[in-house]
Formats: sequence, C-alpha cells, structure tokens
Amino acid sequence: MLIIGELINTSRKLISEAVEKKDADYIKKIAIDQVEAGANYIDVNCGTMIFDEVETMEWLVNTVQEVVQVPLCIDSPNPKAIEAGLKIARNSNGKPLINSITGENERYSEILPLVLNYKTKVVALCMDDNGMPETAEDRMAVAQNLYQRLIEAGVSEDDIYFDPLVKPVSTGDKAGLEVLDTIKLIKENYPNVHMVCGLSNVSFGLPNRKVLNQLFMIQTMTMGMDSYILNPLDKSMMGAVQGSQTLLGKDSYCTGYLNAHRKRLYE
Amino acid sequence: MLIIGELINTSRKLISEAVEKKDADYIKKIAIDQVEAGANYIDVNCGTMIFDEVETMEWLVNTVQEVVQVPLCIDSPNPKAIEAGLKIARNSNGKPLINSITGENERYSEILPLVLNYKTKVVALCMDDNGMPETAEDRMAVAQNLYQRLIEAGVSEDDIYFDPLVKPVSTGDKAGLEVLDTIKLIKENYPNVHMVCGLSNVSFGLPNRKVLNQLFMIQTMTMGMDSYILNPLDKSMMGAVQGSQTLLGKDSYCTGYLNAHRKRLYE
Repeated sequence: MLIIGELINTSRKLISEAVEKKDADYIKKIAIDQVEAGANYIDVNCGTMIFDEVETMEWLVNTVQEVVQVPLCIDSPNPKAIEAGLKIARNSNGKPLINSITGENERYSEILPLVLNYKTKVVALCMDDNGMPETAEDRMAVAQNLYQRLIEAGVSEDDIYFDPLVKPVSTGDKAGLEVLDTIKLIKENYPNVHMVCGLSNVSFGLPNRKVLNQLFMIQTMTMGMDSYILNPLDKSMMGAVQGSQTLLGKDSYCTGYLNAHRKRLYE
Repeated sequence: MLIIGELINTSRKLISEAVEKKDADYIKKIAIDQVEAGANYIDVNCGTMIFDEVETMEWLVNTVQEVVQVPLCIDSPNPKAIEAGLKIARNSNGKPLINSITGENERYSEILPLVLNYKTKVVALCMDDNGMPETAEDRMAVAQNLYQRLIEAGVSEDDIYFDPLVKPVSTGDKAGLEVLDTIKLIKENYPNVHMVCGLSNVSFGLPNRKVLNQLFMIQTMTMGMDSYILNPLDKSMMGAVQGSQTLLGKDSYCTGYLNAHRKRLYE
C-alpha cells in the first residue's frame, strides 16, 4: 500500500505562507509528521506559485529531503518544475513518482522523457485530448492506450499508477460507481499495474465530506486500488486504511491492526 | 437494501429479561425504534429459551406485529419455533424471511417445507454436512448445490438470501477475503439471488470491534451484498450504509444521503 502524504501543497494556506517566508522548519515538521503517521511517499506541489514554481520546487525538495528518507511525489502541471524536482530528488530513498502523465499528446510527450531519463514511477491519469471520460469503459480505453505506449517506451508495469479520475457524486449519481468499475476493468486487464487516486473530489458539494471520502477509500481499496494521495494525519482515515487491509487478508496475525490500535487510531 | 434489525434476540440480556417478565412495552419499543431507524425487517430470535421457545416465539411475533408494519425474520435453530412464528406472521406486511436453511440434509428437509408452505424468503447458509467451508470455492460449491435444490423445489431466485458465513479474521488472516471472494463468485453465477450476513463475527477477539464490523459492511456491500442483519440504532453504521449506497450509484440526486445528514447520522 502506497500512502502519499498530500499536505505539502501550496494550495493550502499554511504551506503557502511557509513557502513565502522560506520557513523551512514548518515544512520539515509537516514532512516528518506525515512520515511518522505512515506516509511512504511525500507529495510536493507548488503549482500555485506560477512565477517562481521551479525555484520553489527546488527549495521544497531540498527542505523535505533534509529530514525524511522516503521518496517524493513530484506533482505539477509544469514539466519544468517537475524536472527541477527530479534533478535533485534523492534516488536512494526509492524511485520518485511523477504526478502526472496523461494521454494528451502534448502532456505525454513532455512527461515521458522525464519518466525515462530519471527512471521514475508515474501517475497516469485516465484522460486524453478528448477530455475526461464519463464511463468506466471510456476510462479503460484511455488506460489501454496509455498502457501500450508506456510499456512500448520501456516503462515497467510496476512503475505505472493509473488514476481513474474521481468526479463528484453530487454532479452525477454514477460518478463513484464508474470509478469502482474502472478499477475492476484495469485490474482484470493489467493485474500488475498499480492504481491511485485522491479522494476528496468524490464528496464535493455534499456535507460530511470526510465520511464520504473515507467510505470511498474503503470501496476503492476493496476493488483493488493500492495507493492513495491523502492526509496521513487524519487518524480516522489511517485507521480505516489499516483495518481495510486487515480484512482484505493483507495483515499477518492482525499485527498491523493491533499496532494501529496501540497508536490510538481508533479512539 | 434489506436492513434486518437484530435487536429482538433473547441472547441479549435486556430482551431476555423483558421476555421473562412478558414486558410487551419494552419489546414494542425496540421494534418501533428499529423500524424508525431504517430496518425493513425485524429479526425475532428466542433460541435461548429452550424450554418454551415455541410459546415465546408466538408471543414475540404477536407483540412485534401489534406495532410495526414490516415483515419479520423468523430466526431459530428449532423448526417448530419457526413454524409457530410463520403461522401467525402477517403476510400483508411482506413475505416473512426464515433464518435459516443449510445444505445439511436434516436441516434442509425440515426447513424446505416451511419455505414452500408459508411462501417465505429464506436465508441459505453456505454450509452442509461437511461443516463450515474455509475457502470461497468451497462455499460456492455449497451455494451451487443449495441453489439447484431450492430452484428445483420451486423457490424463486428473488427469495434466496445466501449467507457466506463470516468467521473471525483473528483466527485466520484470509477470513474476510474469502467472504468477499464468495460474494463475487455467487453474484457472477447467480446475479438475481440476494446475499446477507451478520457482521460481528469478523471482529471477534479484536479491539474496536465496531470499526471492523463497519469496514466489513462497506467492503461486502462493494462486492454486491445487499442485506444485513445489524443494529439499526447504531447511527454510525446506518450512516455508512447510506453513504455507501450513495457512492455505489444507488441514490438518485443524493437524496438518501442528504436525508441521513438531516437525521444527524453523521454527527
């Protein structure tokens, strides 16, 4: 299970303030807290800093790497910022993860060389130049095309993380179901690739969003998703991640569950 | 979604005391509370009253039917008690549900005539004279045999509720997974039958049992289970039932979810 800590993102006010002030201690604390809470990747996203994203990415990657030994998820719409992060990302911590490539021709041709040159893992969004698909079958068609191109280019199955793209259930009753069906289709066709998503989109526009996000985590994991971009400091969510793993037969003698209990994740 | 309220069971101390004292008001209150909380069947189980189970069943069925309009789940190891309940169960509330038939020859031959004579629905446990199966494949083999015999006897698919039998994950790492795989196999082979289970066995011997029971409800529903024997007064559980339905595409315009929110199930 890959837990990608999502907190170091300049779209969050406290992070953006820390970045403005070059408050390295705050960034380091958030990195350490996430790893201690169970994150095995740290997402670094400063996409809101449109005028100095490259320099900010470098500063963030260096700052985070000073204190944690996990690999980074380099997350940006801007290929130059991604490359700046990859250049200094420490491979000894494990392969960095690029977030993200898509089936859009321009994006694909910009990101693929970074995946190959820096030997990274990559999140592959199920969208292309026709936009974001609605149905599971349409998402599968995009995934199929991306899979073939990535494998032919030399990317290994184990380095591909398909993101089915989660839309709000408030704008379409079947939005969650189509994602669950997409996971099923992708796992049936490509059992060795990984699947990842963020959760919060699903609850957009509805009350009690944390409840819905957590329910959707459990549902997607049941269907075979094995990686999440989430807030690892959310004890209830992390308790649900561990408990779900235990019930899915991935926790020998329930030791992970009992450890989570001792860490008071269920209080 | 069938929610079978489990609280009227003499293995619970307060119910057993109420039965001893013939405290009809208490039983009625528990019946009403469960229906108001969303139960669409009421389980009636007095299996602990081994010396006067038949009379107790009659009293309980009459008492419950005085105040609620939902059908009953007549739940007993004793076919005589089941028949006593069925004789007076009001069909105008909907078909009663017998809990349960099994593939064991003696049990099967005792319960089948009741299913046919009283035109009931029936819970079919995935076990036979060889005992309780371990794997999904073994459970499926029992289900297949039961399915064929029940259908040949004239029971309709819509009246069959397979119970895969939930064992504690504390005594076997794959106990939960085998149930999830069983649901998948049964739904693939018999898409029109229903599936039901109780949840609490899964967490036996572990801390925070309510958390695990709820996670397992969400997981099994994701795989296609559509009926549960549970405590409908547990707000968190009922909130998770509704939220899961919403994310599974079974809640037009999220109205069920928004109603659950207004009923404060998520506080």
